[in-house]
Amino acid sequence: MPENRFFLEDAFEKGLTVYLKGDELRHLRVMRREIGETIELVNGKNQLGHALLTHLDKETATLTLSNVIDAPPPERQLILAQALLKPKNLDLVIEKGTELGATAFWLFPGQKSEKKGLSPTQIQRCRHLTISALKQCGRLDLPDIRIMPLLADWEEFPPGNRFFGDRHSEESFRPPKGNTILFVGPEKGFSSEEKKLLSHHTQGVRIHSYVLRAETAALCFLALANFP
Amino acid sequence: MPENRFFLEDAFEKGLTVYLKGDELRHLRVMRREIGETIELVNGKNQLGHALLTHLDKETATLTLSNVIDAPPPERQLILAQALLKPKNLDLVIEKGTELGATAFWLFPGQKSEKKGLSPTQIQRCRHLTISALKQCGRLDLPDIRIMPLLADWEEFPPGNRFFGDRHSEESFRPPKGNTILFVGPEKGFSSEEKKLLSHHTQGVRIHSYVLRAETAALCFLALANFP
Repeated sequence: MPENRFFLEDAFEKGLTVYLKGDELRHLRVMRREIGETIELVNGKNQLGHALLTHLDKETATLTLSNVIDAPPPERQLILAQALLKPKNLDLVIEKGTELGATAFWLFPGQKSEKKGLSPTQIQRCRHLTISALKQCGRLDLPDIRIMPLLADWEEFPPGNRFFGDRHSEESFRPPKGNTILFVGPEKGFSSEEKKLLSHHTQGVRIHSYVLRAETAALCFLALANFP
Repeated sequence: MPENRFFLEDAFEKGLTVYLKGDELRHLRVMRREIGETIELVNGKNQLGHALLTHLDKETATLTLSNVIDAPPPERQLILAQALLKPKNLDLVIEKGTELGATAFWLFPGQKSEKKGLSPTQIQRCRHLTISALKQCGRLDLPDIRIMPLLADWEEFPPGNRFFGDRHSEESFRPPKGNTILFVGPEKGFSSEEKKLLSHHTQGVRIHSYVLRAETAALCFLALANFP
C-alpha cells in the first residue's frame, strides 16, 4: 500500500543494508512498524524496495533489502513551468502537481509575482511536499524542482510540446503525446511582455471556460495533460 | 473584470435601487470604490448587473442598476457528490470545484468519513467559498450546496451520467455530454459496501494512473469533465 512507503535516497540493491533516519524514521514510528516486519522503500529513482526491519533505536532504523523492483522511468517529461506564487498556493501546486504526474517543476519569478525568489528553506519545503506526495500516490520517480530565471532570461525553451494557459485563445488544450511543458503565470497573470515571449515560443491554449486562479489553472492543466 | 464583482442575492432589473451590506460592503471599501463609479453585480442566478454607486455610508452602499444582462443557465448539471472531508480539504474542493464548473455539491457522510456532518457555520462557510470563487471566475450561476444522507439511504440517484472514481477500473473516464454526477469518496476511500452500491448505480472509472488523494481526485474529475 502506498501509504506505508518510506523514502530513502540511496540506490537500491537486493541484500543491501540501509538506514532510515530523521523524518522517515519518525514516520516509521508513527506507523508503529516493528522488528521483523517488511516495509516498502522508494528512492524517487524508479525503484521500489521491500525491506526487512532488523534493528530499531532512537536514531536509526536498520533494514535489509529483500527485493528490489526496477520500474521504467515515466514515458515522457511533463514539466510544469510555474511562476512563483504565494507560499500557500505554491505548496498546493507542488503537492497536487506531484500526484497529477508532473515530472518536474520549473519555478521562475513572473514579472507580476509577489515573490521574486525562494529561500533554501522554501525549496526544501517544496521537496518535502514532493516526497510526501510521491509516497502516497504510488509513483516511483521524484519530480525535480528547478529554480529558473525570469522568462526573458531563459537561454532556450526545451524541445517538445509547449503551452501556456491563455483564456482568450481560440484553441482548446488538446493534450499531446511526448514531452510537454506547461507555463502557468502568477496570481496576477503574465505581463504583456511575458505573453509576447510565450506566444513566440509556445502555444496559448484555453483550458477552461471560466477564469481560473493560478493554482487552479496549474492543476487543471496537469489533469488534462494526463487525460487517460 | 471578474475581480471587481460584488454579490447580491436580489433579482436584478434595470433601474432598480439595491443595497450592499456586510461582507460585500467591506469588499467595496477594500476596492476603494467611490460615488459615481459603476460596478458589476452578480446574484448567482445568471444575471450580471452594472450599477452606479450613488450613496455610501458605514452601513450601506446604495446602487442603481443601469444595465442588466440575463445569461443562459449552464448547459448541463455537473454535480459533485462528495463524501465529507476534513475541513481544509472540503474547503479546497468547494473553492476550486466552483472555479472548475461544478453546478452543485452534494455532500454526504461517507462510511469512512471522519466527520459525519456539517454545522450550520460550516455550511455557511462553504457557501461563502462558492460566492467568492463565483465572483472571481466569471461564472454567473452559484453552485448549490446540498447536504445528503449516507449513500445507502439515498432514495434515488439522479438521472444522467453517473460515475465514481475507481482506480482499479479498466475504464478510463471519458467525459460525456449532458447532466453528469461524479462521486468521490472521503480521505480513506469508499467502504466495500459503498463501492457495491456505487457499482450498481454508477460507472466506476479511472481518472488517473496514480493514486489521488480524495480532494485531488475531485478536482481532477471536474477538470476532465469540462474537457474543452
